[in-house]
Amino acid sequence: MFQKRLLHSSRSVFNRALTPLTHVKHPEFQRNPAFSKITNKDVEFFKTVLAPTNIVHETDPESTNMIQYNTDWFNLYRGSSLLCLFPTTTEQVSQILKYCNKQKLAVVPQGGNTGVSGGAIPVFDEIIVNTSKMNKIRHFDAVSGAAIVDCGVVLEALDQYLEPRGYTVPLDLGAKGSCQLGGNVSTNAGGLRLMRFGNLHGNVLGLEVVLPDGTILDNLSTLRKDNTGYDLKQLFIGAEGTLGLITGVSLLTPRRPKSVNVAMVGLGSFEDVQKAFVMAKEDLSEILSAFEFWDSDSVGVVKSQMMQDVNYPIEGEHAFYALLETQGSKQEHDQEKLDEYLGRLLETGVAKDGVMAQDAKQVNSLWGWREKIPESISKSGTAMTYDVAMEVPLLYKMVEDAKKHFGDKNQLGPGKLYSNLLGFGHVGDGNLHIMANLEGFDDHGQEAMDEFVFSWAMKNNGSITAEHGVGVSKVNYMNRAKSSVQLALMRTIKGAIDPNGIMNPYKVIPEQ
Amino acid sequence: MFQKRLLHSSRSVFNRALTPLTHVKHPEFQRNPAFSKITNKDVEFFKTVLAPTNIVHETDPESTNMIQYNTDWFNLYRGSSLLCLFPTTTEQVSQILKYCNKQKLAVVPQGGNTGVSGGAIPVFDEIIVNTSKMNKIRHFDAVSGAAIVDCGVVLEALDQYLEPRGYTVPLDLGAKGSCQLGGNVSTNAGGLRLMRFGNLHGNVLGLEVVLPDGTILDNLSTLRKDNTGYDLKQLFIGAEGTLGLITGVSLLTPRRPKSVNVAMVGLGSFEDVQKAFVMAKEDLSEILSAFEFWDSDSVGVVKSQMMQDVNYPIEGEHAFYALLETQGSKQEHDQEKLDEYLGRLLETGVAKDGVMAQDAKQVNSLWGWREKIPESISKSGTAMTYDVAMEVPLLYKMVEDAKKHFGDKNQLGPGKLYSNLLGFGHVGDGNLHIMANLEGFDDHGQEAMDEFVFSWAMKNNGSITAEHGVGVSKVNYMNRAKSSVQLALMRTIKGAIDPNGIMNPYKVIPEQ
Repeated sequence: MFQKRLLHSSRSVFNRALTPLTHVKHPEFQRNPAFSKITNKDVEFFKTVLAPTNIVHETDPESTNMIQYNTDWFNLYRGSSLLCLFPTTTEQVSQILKYCNKQKLAVVPQGGNTGVSGGAIPVFDEIIVNTSKMNKIRHFDAVSGAAIVDCGVVLEALDQYLEPRGYTVPLDLGAKGSCQLGGNVSTNAGGLRLMRFGNLHGNVLGLEVVLPDGTILDNLSTLRKDNTGYDLKQLFIGAEGTLGLITGVSLLTPRRPKSVNVAMVGLGSFEDVQKAFVMAKEDLSEILSAFEFWDSDSVGVVKSQMMQDVNYPIEGEHAFYALLETQGSKQEHDQEKLDEYLGRLLETGVAKDGVMAQDAKQVNSLWGWREKIPESISKSGTAMTYDVAMEVPLLYKMVEDAKKHFGDKNQLGPGKLYSNLLGFGHVGDGNLHIMANLEGFDDHGQEAMDEFVFSWAMKNNGSITAEHGVGVSKVNYMNRAKSSVQLALMRTIKGAIDPNGIMNPYKVIPEQ
Repeated sequence: MFQKRLLHSSRSVFNRALTPLTHVKHPEFQRNPAFSKITNKDVEFFKTVLAPTNIVHETDPESTNMIQYNTDWFNLYRGSSLLCLFPTTTEQVSQILKYCNKQKLAVVPQGGNTGVSGGAIPVFDEIIVNTSKMNKIRHFDAVSGAAIVDCGVVLEALDQYLEPRGYTVPLDLGAKGSCQLGGNVSTNAGGLRLMRFGNLHGNVLGLEVVLPDGTILDNLSTLRKDNTGYDLKQLFIGAEGTLGLITGVSLLTPRRPKSVNVAMVGLGSFEDVQKAFVMAKEDLSEILSAFEFWDSDSVGVVKSQMMQDVNYPIEGEHAFYALLETQGSKQEHDQEKLDEYLGRLLETGVAKDGVMAQDAKQVNSLWGWREKIPESISKSGTAMTYDVAMEVPLLYKMVEDAKKHFGDKNQLGPGKLYSNLLGFGHVGDGNLHIMANLEGFDDHGQEAMDEFVFSWAMKNNGSITAEHGVGVSKVNYMNRAKSSVQLALMRTIKGAIDPNGIMNPYKVIPEQ
């Protein structure tokens, strides 16, 4: 039941009932008896490493001081750690991990705690190493755009630092005001700009990582090209803290765009969405920065839940809508390209209607209709959301097949098991978000939808997590999502680098 | 002496004297006695796997049939293998490696044999597994641009396949007519388009790899986003065949540009080269596809060796020259941006003079002045060439320091130890090629230049190989180029994945 993200309209971690402990909800997780439990002697050691203000130690995991580190943002996962450490330097992280490795104390790295898969939350009593106090921008090279930052620097803070220097960050997330670079890299965060700038495997130039035994791997290169041996940093990108703790990040940042344009179009079929996407790659090519789509059911739920009295930007009803964004260095050129593209879309009949933002306010307004979809569906009831990836031509077929599957069972529609089912996502990245409202809180209904969505994705060579990561939320699906060869190689790497298994246990790789 | 690439005006591997055996030139390489020597029994086994035409087995490693596989393109490295296998399927590669691993027979993977570091040539009697007969394009998705190909597909052949479909390959190399995708990925090939499209860690979507024990790792995803566990493909990109043999590649290909423009400018200092580069990123941003530079000594050697009677495109003498290329989707727009950029360069005095290509012929002509530099210096005598990377602001300081260092010793100038010394490279990638002519063939002179260049690069956090890779050519520098922590982690990974060490031994990671 824990494998999907349930959206709640109130997301504050405070003033709400505590979610059950993860290992109580999911008894398939068993505490590994090889791990020690912390003692006062351990805490005394940490006091020799960190200032007293950088140690939170409680005897009750539900105490006010600890609960915010034991619980995730969505209130879906909860651990029972008694100790949260706030190192301020890489050397301190090294001393902490060296000690933990010797004493077989399990550790969970935690950044901005904005993850949605429970990866940064203890499952049992793992020591939390929170990186919030490591937040210096160490170096920026205005010629190359290379920035070296501490792991705890907040993504938006880096972007604000870069703005007057004419640069920007190569990734953009809803959580940018809280998420930290170390967490972004550890989860290989995707986000809205991936289509344009590629993923972090291409944008990270180097990493500083404290390995599980406390060894500091200084790989903080600012070079774009370096072929001296294995590209070690790649191992840690997306490893969700299971192979070491990332303490420093060297990131290649692109020039800030001078011109941003947004258009929305209405289309008659998902075939036409694909055609419009291919034509956008042809006509807009180097300036195309986003290509999002959603279905008419998504429009319905936004209209009914959040925007009752506001006219939709496009008149009439269309089966699909697409939002395109361009980013470029010259407004007239970008505008002209976009005009021509939209003209071609309408002339060829691929799009039925379209509208272009005339100013920054309209840009935000058009984006708003896309961004309000998940919030609207969470307002309309118990919401299930999935984050799958697959080949673009298959992207919407999953939704159609789900509608048929549950429709044939008479389970889909107002008042039925699933009151609605809709699809939207990033066409440019092949990333679909499928969401459904469940009437009441029916475990069977969740299980059936999980089973349908994940099975469909796996059967079609898709991914059960495009950008959110495995964490604890999907670890028990990994045996089906990956081949035994892939899992064996992951275990080989994990065993070689973290033989005691102290780094973020119970996550990513399933127990055998 | 083997650590630099010596350029010869005749590059044909035929009709020239054989280079000495690598292990004879470099007695520091000792054959690992743990490896078996091939017997007739082994050959009999391979005959059960491969058709007779796909096995070359000789008793003399210098025989006409074997020598082309035992020798590299530059005639710098030579091994003494007696067996070259040409699998046509992944299953055959699996059977071969499984057998070799059991029998402890060492293997060297070989693609187009265009590498410059000796990575694809046996050092002793390793069995050569040549991938030339695995050359099918398996799948292309015209919506996403994802192409899945056999490892032996030639880069240019893939580009020709993509051309009528409106796509192109995201990397471009001088060797594109011979190099194979499997080798490109194994060496993390850089090339001319890296600045625009990033490196292969970002462009490779998935790999199929036969592991050293014969296990087939099928990781041939076409997804742009997939965060289910460790990104295993990254391990094999740039591992130079030491962790397994790449049999299939899934590559993200970009749209083919509709418009290509090239300009050349003359500049007074390397400071100005950097300013021009920053301004190009500002003004040309998304369409900038190359930014190359060279010094006035480079002009001198090209004029004297290859272009005596041709006027240089820019009049007068300038300390530095830069070549810029743009690739975009609309010619008028790109031209206008380039016009404005060049205008700004001249108005602000950053550039002294400039010229823009008016047609495809002039594009090739301007590129020619850049591309003729290495050939010209190799024509003017025994040539040493280096491939280093460092932060852009330091890029030319290495050349200045080298000139001062050897000038102070009275070793630089016509008739002296080094008759000339020049620098050129890819500003966009922080990649410098420093070249020098050595009078006669003076070992001491080579050693001194190696020592100066490599020490300087390492002291300044640079890389001793930006794009060519380690192979055998730089393996004995790795102890200085990488930290003991980095080397230990590389050994941990190698030991975990290839415990018998059969895959491409003696390369990349130095013996302890």
